[in-house]
Amino acid sequence: MDQKGLLIVISGFSGAGKGTLVKELVDRYGYSLSISCTTREPRAGEVDGVDYHFKNKEEFERLIDYNGFIEYAQYVENYYGTPRKFVEDEMAAGHNVILEIEVQGAINIKKQYPDAVTMFISAPSAAILRERLVGRGSEDEATINKRMKRAITEADSMPVYDYIVINDDLEDCVNQVQSIIVAESSKSKYKEGFMDEIKDELQSV
Amino acid sequence: MDQKGLLIVISGFSGAGKGTLVKELVDRYGYSLSISCTTREPRAGEVDGVDYHFKNKEEFERLIDYNGFIEYAQYVENYYGTPRKFVEDEMAAGHNVILEIEVQGAINIKKQYPDAVTMFISAPSAAILRERLVGRGSEDEATINKRMKRAITEADSMPVYDYIVINDDLEDCVNQVQSIIVAESSKSKYKEGFMDEIKDELQSV
Repeated sequence: MDQKGLLIVISGFSGAGKGTLVKELVDRYGYSLSISCTTREPRAGEVDGVDYHFKNKEEFERLIDYNGFIEYAQYVENYYGTPRKFVEDEMAAGHNVILEIEVQGAINIKKQYPDAVTMFISAPSAAILRERLVGRGSEDEATINKRMKRAITEADSMPVYDYIVINDDLEDCVNQVQSIIVAESSKSKYKEGFMDEIKDELQSV
Repeated sequence: MDQKGLLIVISGFSGAGKGTLVKELVDRYGYSLSISCTTREPRAGEVDGVDYHFKNKEEFERLIDYNGFIEYAQYVENYYGTPRKFVEDEMAAGHNVILEIEVQGAINIKKQYPDAVTMFISAPSAAILRERLVGRGSEDEATINKRMKRAITEADSMPVYDYIVINDDLEDCVNQVQSIIVAESSKSKYKEGFMDEIKDELQSV
């Protein structure tokens, strides 16, 4: 099998459980996790190369000039970007690459990589989404309200995703995403090698 | 959930294990199996309504006139067809319908039902395909050679299928097909109801 790896793009509402989901996919199935570059300051506990690749502005802009990102954006004076080399090397080596990204980044990636598998993770309902954000206990009400407001805008983009995954139970959610990955890997467009082989072999058996 | 059922079209080489696969899918997941109509005589052990719906030529042609088939074909003076009513009623009731069919029938169905999920089941290699046909012990060498010859033609149509499933181990094969069905059911095009709901709800939570 010299099948290329898939580019798996995961977005979703804040509080939908993307972080835990992505961690499980990487731990259980050994998928390659793309780590973003950023120019923002590391927060307490964040590790360079694990949470982000922390760069200064000059380094980041040099990477932009060298076409080093498959997508990047600027929020509140800070850059965020997805390094091209890691993603393309891993895919070429046949590894599935997971990328957790905002809606606009996902749309940009799908334009460049039409075979990217895009999925949007949602809570089962808006009430449960709010409950989960409150349950985290890490954000004040104003921040939670801001996240809920952003969810309204994000919801408008749900139809541009290939798949919608409703995260009710983590175990079910991981299995559903894994099913999507298995299915995508089974698409006939990736089976040219196998099809050519069996056609040749059928002529001589 | 008032999501419509999927139309799952399964083709594959003779000897690839389609029959066993379909039986497992129906037994384990309760999918609805579409049973073809035919005008050929029942063979020993075949049961009307289980293996086929056996019809005489007049009945069959009346059904053709009434648009009663989603596809039909004539082979060696006998008609074979897929009854429309069963397929459409089951899908409307939200049940996934499985249809085991020849390559040309699958192509015809995909034209009418672009959302139909088409999969081609193959043995891992031509040598294993021949082994399985020989192992059945039910066919003489001439028949096996005929089936292998037909496989050459069928192999040319593999790329028109959405998915290629290589049946090496039955258990893996059933799981892979089930993953494809789960993935297809998760496509955003079927989630309009959910998306509208959560958008409404986000406005008020």
